[in-house]
This record gives sequence, structure tokens and C-alpha cells, in this order.
Amino acid sequence: MRVLVLGGDGFLGWPTALHLSASGHDVAIADSGIRRTYDAELGTSSLLPIGSLAERTRLWEHVSGRRIDVYDGDLCDADFVDATFRGYEPAAVVHFAEQRSAPYSMIDRAHAVHTQVNNVVGTLNVLYAIAEANRGIHLVKLGTMGEYGTPNIDIEEGWLDVTHNGRSDRVLFPKRPGSMYHLSKVHDSHNIEFASRVWGLAATDLNQGIVYGVETVETALDPGLATRFDYDEVFGTVLNRMIVQAVIGDPLTVYGSGGQIRGFLDVRDTVACVRLAIEHPAQPGEFRVFNQFTEQFSVSDLATLVAKVWPGAATIDNLDNPRVESEAHYYNAAHTKLLDLGLRPHLLADTLIDSLFDVVGTHRSRVDPTVIRPTVSWRRTGNTPAPTP
Amino acid sequence: MRVLVLGGDGFLGWPTALHLSASGHDVAIADSGIRRTYDAELGTSSLLPIGSLAERTRLWEHVSGRRIDVYDGDLCDADFVDATFRGYEPAAVVHFAEQRSAPYSMIDRAHAVHTQVNNVVGTLNVLYAIAEANRGIHLVKLGTMGEYGTPNIDIEEGWLDVTHNGRSDRVLFPKRPGSMYHLSKVHDSHNIEFASRVWGLAATDLNQGIVYGVETVETALDPGLATRFDYDEVFGTVLNRMIVQAVIGDPLTVYGSGGQIRGFLDVRDTVACVRLAIEHPAQPGEFRVFNQFTEQFSVSDLATLVAKVWPGAATIDNLDNPRVESEAHYYNAAHTKLLDLGLRPHLLADTLIDSLFDVVGTHRSRVDPTVIRPTVSWRRTGNTPAPTP
Repeated sequence: MRVLVLGGDGFLGWPTALHLSASGHDVAIADSGIRRTYDAELGTSSLLPIGSLAERTRLWEHVSGRRIDVYDGDLCDADFVDATFRGYEPAAVVHFAEQRSAPYSMIDRAHAVHTQVNNVVGTLNVLYAIAEANRGIHLVKLGTMGEYGTPNIDIEEGWLDVTHNGRSDRVLFPKRPGSMYHLSKVHDSHNIEFASRVWGLAATDLNQGIVYGVETVETALDPGLATRFDYDEVFGTVLNRMIVQAVIGDPLTVYGSGGQIRGFLDVRDTVACVRLAIEHPAQPGEFRVFNQFTEQFSVSDLATLVAKVWPGAATIDNLDNPRVESEAHYYNAAHTKLLDLGLRPHLLADTLIDSLFDVVGTHRSRVDPTVIRPTVSWRRTGNTPAPTP
Repeated sequence: MRVLVLGGDGFLGWPTALHLSASGHDVAIADSGIRRTYDAELGTSSLLPIGSLAERTRLWEHVSGRRIDVYDGDLCDADFVDATFRGYEPAAVVHFAEQRSAPYSMIDRAHAVHTQVNNVVGTLNVLYAIAEANRGIHLVKLGTMGEYGTPNIDIEEGWLDVTHNGRSDRVLFPKRPGSMYHLSKVHDSHNIEFASRVWGLAATDLNQGIVYGVETVETALDPGLATRFDYDEVFGTVLNRMIVQAVIGDPLTVYGSGGQIRGFLDVRDTVACVRLAIEHPAQPGEFRVFNQFTEQFSVSDLATLVAKVWPGAATIDNLDNPRVESEAHYYNAAHTKLLDLGLRPHLLADTLIDSLFDVVGTHRSRVDPTVIRPTVSWRRTGNTPAPTP
């Protein structure tokens, strides 16, 4: 199948593109490189060194014998999007190409507006490009479990059967997200559902949990194929960040009590989930939602686990929570649809954590410990992410 | 109370500003004049002649002895928004300043993107301005009943008590809107709820039905105080448009079978509802939603009513529906909260329809019959609104 991976230069877009290519699909990447400019803005960089997109795709062709075409441009540029769709003629599109950090979106007004405009307009341009180029193209869009928030009822996969005053309907699952970034994904989901309904598009919204790990079968083939590893307060995610803190001998930081429960998955499952979604497409006019995670943990559970597996001493530091979120809540989210399609989860095991200790240990000299502690407060409207010694 | 009316040059913003001023509040208007540029783009104009905003506020001061300050600028300009809030120091803000036409948003990609960016960014800038200037400012935001779509269950006022798998929660009422415009209001609602939750803002979301009528107590004081009357396919709303069709002897056009049921209200009730919301503000941190309409009608009910009241002969023409919407559906929407605050509805009566016949008859020579028939199709992604003889 011809698959266009939007945002294929990012943390998950890159290993997904490789996995799809290795699985026999013809793959092209579209990316503006904006993730690298966020690094420049924030003074951060990937723990694992990564080459340019051109270097990486060249290396992939050398290693695998398979070519990945590259389209260099921004989804907010409608002409670029249209030209890419008409030029590549994909059968499926995987859309990772959004500003993906909640703290980044909460820095200040300008970053909130950038996040919502970038994500919403990019997705609108993709929807129009599909509607105009070929309404049969299957859109696989990365959403987030954070769209749901933490309701006091079971979270279903996108839709909810409701009975109210004696009448019933199947409605979109109500959303109550926790940041300007998560809101942008809610906006996208509503826009995509509408496009499915009005233009008959086939769409899969992958409401993904928090990803940990860094290596996939394909990125492991050569160090030059590595994907980025972020551990900073803005783009780092919780488990990977705690691994870095353990390795450099800093306390593992937990926001508030750590009772926040979230869905998690291994990066190897991300790439498998996307492939499964592509190989079992939505029907024309169908807006389907998969909750893409494999296990639920609380943040304090994770900190305890990392501290236990780390061979040295590791302490846990409960910080004032910079976010506005519940730290004691019910959480039970369905996640059977991808299992039904054949996903074989890599559950979080001590061996994976050990391997991450090794990865981080190898690159320990590249760790900047001053970018880890949270400085972006949800309660303030003007934040300046700054080094904290 | 000091009230800032955003979009105070528009169809509803203008009479609302006058009504608040007449009710003893200190009122300022902020407006970019963009509604008038849409007229220029579409080759349309208000059936009732309207003066410039400066002429109208000058006349209002002459008639009423009350001054309305004017801030000329665009809500998408954050510096303008911040300066206006810091300069005027309102206690409450009424936010009408959005692109409000569903057909306009469905013309093509550029109009969809304009609508969503204009509306979402404008509202984000207002939320940040409140959070930064004075978190005690009460935001009264115009939403639309169209945010809900047509679910098969009773529509509640913004929130829904759900029991699912034996557990209960109060969730945001699920939304399934019918155009890129209606989607923009859904996005706004989510953003506002978040701002209430995170920054403690007091917010009222007025999910308004379709407005008919044109005259309020205040606009009737002088012909120069009239608000605009739109009857074209893009900005006209259904009842007012049918009145024009009856007066000029054209068939009353119904989209599809006309079984679409919607909530309606008189423009005199719009201005009263906004005043009631302002005089009974939301609490800090509260995101409350009022369904702002007084009666439900189907489109074919309205056509039949207009034809019956019109003294001449009037035929009804059922057109192929240019929209994608259900024409046979359940619809029962709660609307008690504004009644509880004291709203005394002006229900749709023959006398109101008669008075609209008079208004339109007076300005009959200004009617352009070629801009009434629908040309913007929801199914196409590229439309060119054009005269249809």
C-alpha cells in the first residue's frame, strides 16, 4: 500500500515510517522539520543523536534496500498539502504532524495559539486534500487519550452508548482535556468526524496513551536510524524522563501526589498499531476511534517501579504540581479494538527498563540536567522555560 | 456595570449594545468591521440601510444621552485585545465577534480555515486577555444550538448527567455539529470550559437558536439605529429569508423535506437573554451553558406559517438540500435556565410576521432576488456563491 506519513521526522513518525516500509508498504514522509526548531527555541536536543531526515532516509535505503520519498513542507501550506497528495497518490495517510507537547502549548498565549492553529489548520488542509484528491484515502490520525480527561465513568473507544430520559443514542464520547495541546486534538477529532459524515471519508482516530521506550526492530538496525529521545520538561514524557533522572542520580520527580492514572504503551506497539490500522482500514464514511495503549499506571507506580529496577539508590521527589489536574480519580479506559486486530502488546517489563538504562547510560554525557525540572505552570499565562540547576 | 460588546457592529451585537446601554450599563463596542467586508466579498448588503458604526453610536448618544465607546480592531490581534481590556476595564464581556455563517464556512477550504482560525484565535485572545487583565471579568460568549446537532436524546443545557456501567458523572454534552462554522463554536466551548477550570474564569456560553425579527425597543427609536437584516443564502436566516421571498412573490424555499427541527427566538429575546446573563453572572471557575431559544419549529412548519399569514398567494418550493443534515429526527432541547432568570419570551406570533412583512415591504426595492437561492453545497469542497436568477 502507498502510505504517506505526515510528521515522519518526529519521535514516532520516523520509526512508524521505517516499520511500514519494512512491512512491505511504499512509504513517503512529509515533514517541515518544525520539531527541530522547537529544540532550537528551548535549548534542548534529543538524547540520542539523530541525523537529518535526508541522512536517515538515505541510510534506510542502504540498510533495507527500500526507498522512502521525502516531501519537505508545512501542512499549514495548503498548496504544499495538495501538491503532495496529488504527487504521491497515497492509499493511506498517517498524520503525526502536530505540535505534541502539553507544556509547550501552556507556555503562553502565543504558544497556545500556535499549537491550536498549527494542529487544526494542518488537519483541515489534510481533510480538504483528501476530499479533493481522492475520497477513498484512509486517514489515520494520531489523537491522544488526554482528549478524554479523567471522567468518573469508564472511557470507551471514541463513542458512547447513552440512555437519557428513556431514549438512547450513540454519541461521541464527551471530552474534557487538560491543556491547550490536548484541546487541539479534540478540535481535530470533531473536524474529522464531520468530514467523515459529510464527505464520506474513512478515518481512524488513534487516541494514544503515553509512549515509553525508544527502540524498534527497524531503528535498532543501525545507530544512524535511531529516533529522538526527549527527557526535558517540555517534550519529555514521564517514564523516559524518570529513566534519565535515575541514571544521572537525580531524584525521580512526580507532579503532586502522583495519583494521576494514564494509559501507556511501548514505542514498538505504536508502530504496530498504526500498521494494523492501515492494513484494516475504516470504511467510507466511518469515523472510528481506537484507544491506543496497553496498560494503565499511576505516575507514582511508575516512579516506584523505576526506583526498584535501578540498581543504585533512587529517591522520589513529589513536586508541587505545575499542571491543573486531578491527582485522585477513577480511570478505566477500554482498549480492545487494536487487540482484536491482532496487536500483541509489549507490556512494561523490568527488561525494557533495564535496556533504557543502558541506552541512557551510553549517552549520559549528552544529558542536560537543567532542562528536566518543570517550570511551565498551567495557572500562569506567561511562562519562560528556563534552566533550573 | 461596565460591559464590553465584542462584535457590536453586527446583526445582534448592535442591538445588544443598545439594550445594555438603555438598561443603564456602561457599554463599549469592539469591532473590526469584518462583517461589512463579507458583504463586499459576496455582493450582498443589509436590506435595511445601516450607517457606519461611528454614525450609529453618535446617533445613539443624541437619542439616548448615553455614550458608547468604540474600539476599532480585530480580536485576532492580541495586542489590540489586551489594550482594549486594559483600557476599558470591563466587568463583563459579551462576545459576538465571530464569523457566524455556516454556508460561508462551507464555501471552500480557505473559508473553512478562515472561520475556524478567526473564531478560535479571537476567543483564545479574549480568554488570555481576561486571565491576564482581571480574572473576575465575566465572559458571556455566543455559541449556537447547532453545536449539539440532532441527537436522538433530549438536549440538556451544556452538561449531561450520565450513568454508564454502574458509575455516574456530569459530562459536557456531546457535540456533533453540522458545519465548519458550528465546529468552530464547539472548539470555542471546549477552550472556554478549560479556561474556567484552569484559571478560574466565570463563563456563560449562550447556545443560541436561530434568530428572527429585526427590531428591538432601542433600534425602533430612530431609523438610523436599525440593525442589519440579511436574507441572502449565506448570511440570511430561515424565517427572515422566507419573509423576503413572500414579499417579492418568490416561492418560499425549504431545503429538502423541511423536517429539520431547530430552536428559534425573537431578536428582542436575544438582547434580553444577554442582559439577564450579565446581570446574573456565572461564579468564578464556573462554565455554565444556557440554551438560548424560546420555541422549536420545523423548517416546513415555518414555511407553512409564513404562507398562511402572507395576505397574497405564496408557494413553497422544496429544494434539493445543499446541506448534509437529517431531515427527519427527534429534537427536544431544554431551555429553562434563562426563563428561571426572568426571561419573558416573545413567542412567534402572526403580528410579528406581519410587522416583518411591513419592514421588508418598505425596503422592497433594495431586495436582490438573485442572492437568495442556495449555491453552497456541503458535499462539494469548492463553491462559488453566485447570483441565481
